[in-house]
Amino acid sequence: MGGNMRERLRSAGHEVVGFDHNAQISDVTTLAGLAEKLESPRAVWVMVPAGVTDATIDELAEVLGEGDIIIDGGNSRFSDDAPRAERLNQRGIGYMDVGVSGGVWGRQNGYGLMVGGSQEHVDRLMPIFNALKPEGEFGFVHAGPVGAGHYSKMVHNGIEYGLMHAYAEGYELMAASELVTNVPGVIKSWREGTVVRSWLLDLLDRALDEDPELADLSGYTEDTGEGRWTVDEAVRLAVPLNVITASLFARFASRQDDSPAMKAVSALRQQFGGHAVHKR
Amino acid sequence: MGGNMRERLRSAGHEVVGFDHNAQISDVTTLAGLAEKLESPRAVWVMVPAGVTDATIDELAEVLGEGDIIIDGGNSRFSDDAPRAERLNQRGIGYMDVGVSGGVWGRQNGYGLMVGGSQEHVDRLMPIFNALKPEGEFGFVHAGPVGAGHYSKMVHNGIEYGLMHAYAEGYELMAASELVTNVPGVIKSWREGTVVRSWLLDLLDRALDEDPELADLSGYTEDTGEGRWTVDEAVRLAVPLNVITASLFARFASRQDDSPAMKAVSALRQQFGGHAVHKR
Amino acid sequence: MGGNMRERLRSAGHEVVGFDHNAQISDVTTLAGLAEKLESPRAVWVMVPAGVTDATIDELAEVLGEGDIIIDGGNSRFSDDAPRAERLNQRGIGYMDVGVSGGVWGRQNGYGLMVGGSQEHVDRLMPIFNALKPEGEFGFVHAGPVGAGHYSKMVHNGIEYGLMHAYAEGYELMAASELVTNVPGVIKSWREGTVVRSWLLDLLDRALDEDPELADLSGYTEDTGEGRWTVDEAVRLAVPLNVITASLFARFASRQDDSPAMKAVSALRQQFGGHAVHKR
Amino acid sequence: MGGNMRERLRSAGHEVVGFDHNAQISDVTTLAGLAEKLESPRAVWVMVPAGVTDATIDELAEVLGEGDIIIDGGNSRFSDDAPRAERLNQRGIGYMDVGVSGGVWGRQNGYGLMVGGSQEHVDRLMPIFNALKPEGEFGFVHAGPVGAGHYSKMVHNGIEYGLMHAYAEGYELMAASELVTNVPGVIKSWREGTVVRSWLLDLLDRALDEDPELADLSGYTEDTGEGRWTVDEAVRLAVPLNVITASLFARFASRQDDSPAMKAVSALRQQFGGHAVHKR
Repeated sequence: MGGNMRERLRSAGHEVVGFDHNAQISDVTTLAGLAEKLESPRAVWVMVPAGVTDATIDELAEVLGEGDIIIDGGNSRFSDDAPRAERLNQRGIGYMDVGVSGGVWGRQNGYGLMVGGSQEHVDRLMPIFNALKPEGEFGFVHAGPVGAGHYSKMVHNGIEYGLMHAYAEGYELMAASELVTNVPGVIKSWREGTVVRSWLLDLLDRALDEDPELADLSGYTEDTGEGRWTVDEAVRLAVPLNVITASLFARFASRQDDSPAMKAVSALRQQFGGHAVHKR
Repeated sequence: MGGNMRERLRSAGHEVVGFDHNAQISDVTTLAGLAEKLESPRAVWVMVPAGVTDATIDELAEVLGEGDIIIDGGNSRFSDDAPRAERLNQRGIGYMDVGVSGGVWGRQNGYGLMVGGSQEHVDRLMPIFNALKPEGEFGFVHAGPVGAGHYSKMVHNGIEYGLMHAYAEGYELMAASELVTNVPGVIKSWREGTVVRSWLLDLLDRALDEDPELADLSGYTEDTGEGRWTVDEAVRLAVPLNVITASLFARFASRQDDSPAMKAVSALRQQFGGHAVHKR
Repeated sequence: MGGNMRERLRSAGHEVVGFDHNAQISDVTTLAGLAEKLESPRAVWVMVPAGVTDATIDELAEVLGEGDIIIDGGNSRFSDDAPRAERLNQRGIGYMDVGVSGGVWGRQNGYGLMVGGSQEHVDRLMPIFNALKPEGEFGFVHAGPVGAGHYSKMVHNGIEYGLMHAYAEGYELMAASELVTNVPGVIKSWREGTVVRSWLLDLLDRALDEDPELADLSGYTEDTGEGRWTVDEAVRLAVPLNVITASLFARFASRQDDSPAMKAVSALRQQFGGHAVHKR
Repeated sequence: MGGNMRERLRSAGHEVVGFDHNAQISDVTTLAGLAEKLESPRAVWVMVPAGVTDATIDELAEVLGEGDIIIDGGNSRFSDDAPRAERLNQRGIGYMDVGVSGGVWGRQNGYGLMVGGSQEHVDRLMPIFNALKPEGEFGFVHAGPVGAGHYSKMVHNGIEYGLMHAYAEGYELMAASELVTNVPGVIKSWREGTVVRSWLLDLLDRALDEDPELADLSGYTEDTGEGRWTVDEAVRLAVPLNVITASLFARFASRQDDSPAMKAVSALRQQFGGHAVHKR
């Protein structure tokens, strides 16, 4: 669990034992030490990079026991959850998947939590969820059985891709127009009273305050897995997901120096039309 | 000007003379009567259906004079603004275009205002704008010269198409999934703490509270002009607008009983592959 | 292997033993019988529905032996090929994957063959490929190692989706226009001299000859796997595949009575704008 | 009229008087000279860059008279045709619009002709169309009244964008894959026996013969008007044109050094997630 979440939990009066590969911020030095320091029944919140989640959980299973619960709060693919729950279940260990939203702002605003697991496990861990989530009536959902938490988070991120790209396209169009001379001002004005107001819009305004022409940024943009999984699911379930997919593909394109596809188009135009083309 | 805006202005202490084709809510019975009742220099806010805006403005020009200002607060196409300003200018009448966002909620929350026109005119009408806009520091922008107000509003609506469709796709994907058993709950949870929180999300939650499976609605969806103009501008300015355009095209498709294009695809499959196809 | 392919092989002087679940057109009644009737080293061409390919191949492996080759000419997913080759390799049985194009027209025109496998196996089976492929210099490729045949065929089909949809969109636009009064005539004219001439266009013309307004067809259109796999690969390899994906999603949409996403959009418009919406 | 078309007409026994701004290949030095040299009733085929078509036609109208016909064989926007026909009609001069396809290959293969105009005019000029079109039964259509020729050609080019992009995406995907080691070979093989065979595919193969990795080309790709007009028409007529529009937008994107929209996405990711972003 990240340092920010730990702080939020401790502020709410929970005892938390932290374990981190960074020894300086770690309360214990081994997973066995972690298990020892917690009272049964234990709840262990895992939040590690996607690649090492299964290894971490399997290692944890060795030092935990009957009645304990492991929560994966990282960005695992939902399809990993059921097999994990199955493996842990054979040892009497419970499993929950929690999609966590909020980024670096969660410490302050609370984290949006989407939870997959049994009702019994949700009830047992509700005090922890209450400490992490925002204070109002929203920000928490028991989305369904094991896997539903990561599934909801995946869709959340897919939507996020689409929302960001919609704003980005509007921004680009205004910047290209001859009429709108105060583009950052328009973005800022939208923060209240309009249909498009949102937290992401607030952040776009913030970014434009810092750099009104986004001159210091490159358009090269990574993607982090959830967008791809969302499109994979659209394909599997035959759901037409044009907007979210276009947002994902725009990220792919942003990372290409030159588009092989457009080189092929260029080659074709040269062949049939004698169109002048750009040589490298 | 709509009744709601009038109320907001009156609450702020402005004298407003209303003219409406609905005689019962109208303070005067003719445009000439309207001009007479206002003190010079007059400001006349026009908010009529797109088709009759020019006729209304030209009629108004006959009863107004030097130093007066006409404001078009309707959803005119930005390209109509400059010719209008030109015509009015020949009579010494000023012109401003104001994009207004907020829908039926504006009365209560204030209206997002995007204004095109000269600095002088903006300064003169600022008290009116202050009364209409939300109370905070946002919700108003002087976007640029005549035309920039409607341009910004057009882009605002284009973005709105994209935002709505991104949420809609995520909603559909979750509804199609086997794992998420509480789709309205997930949407509701997103209202705080998450990256995708927004006013539109609040409204989606509200709609799902009323009808958790949207069972009473048809997917048949109109479009109101601004989305189309946005795509036209993207084409004119060579801006790749994949997300917003996909949202617009999805509305077009929602209004087709059967897709002629898909009938052609179906015909092709039948021809080359002997694929079984669906006959009508 | 289908009856048409068998005929093409026999016309070329090859001895072919057919086995089919339809006993009447089958030369033998069991796979063991098939193996017995062929001389070593044997080559067995499997062309069965996707779901039973692995079972069929594993059954075949029981009755074949060292030096024999199994060819999968069906529409398997390319990722199934390497594991199969591996399993067969342990018994000394070779494996090749062949993507076959041409549909019901292959008997007459020859089949387009895309082959994955070792050079040695390609050399050995070249007489068979020569008999199946079209007579000219094209229609056959050794695309790469095991898997490359099905991969190429998958991409071929992805492209096919895009091509068909491009024609279909143009057809729909002309049909919607006020000016083009002879849409089938325009399509027919394109068959020679134009940049868009193709075999698919010939087939579209043929379909319009039979039904000039495609009045007997529904737009409901299936998809057969390769289109989905193509998009999955685009996602995996971070290749922006907007056109092919849009074609696939259009098929998904063609099978929906009403779009859940558009119902959500409709719900949102009702919430913020009081827009009249269509009730069911 | 271009030199190649002239040659085709002369080969067919037609007398042709050429006028060109390039004095060396011109048979006359002025439009008046051109009119003088032709026998009444005259037919004048105009094929000039889009920007000067109206000026040329209006100049021609001064030197032509009752019963003559002007044919615009250039790539005019269809909406220019009706006003032109109207202007010429007032002088008793006929007008036809002819969309011409075939590019630099037309001299040899014949030109695909899409004609808009009255039946009477089509009948009168049929000998000329017969000389220009390919020899087979295809390659010519009387698409409808004035405007329909350019409309059909516009849609033809829109489809062309989509077809080219479908091939281009498939090419890119295969080039990115680990399995297909002989991408140009796969493209070449498709020229016979497959569903995707076409003239454009032949040209792609030809391009890859010359430059197997398209190493000498840039992806920077122009667009020439018809693609944009096609999308404008889709918007006007509410036809969902996802594939053709995606092809057009890909060209727009190919000409951007960096995408302003993706810079905005990058800015947003930095704001909410502290994601590392690429600085310029």
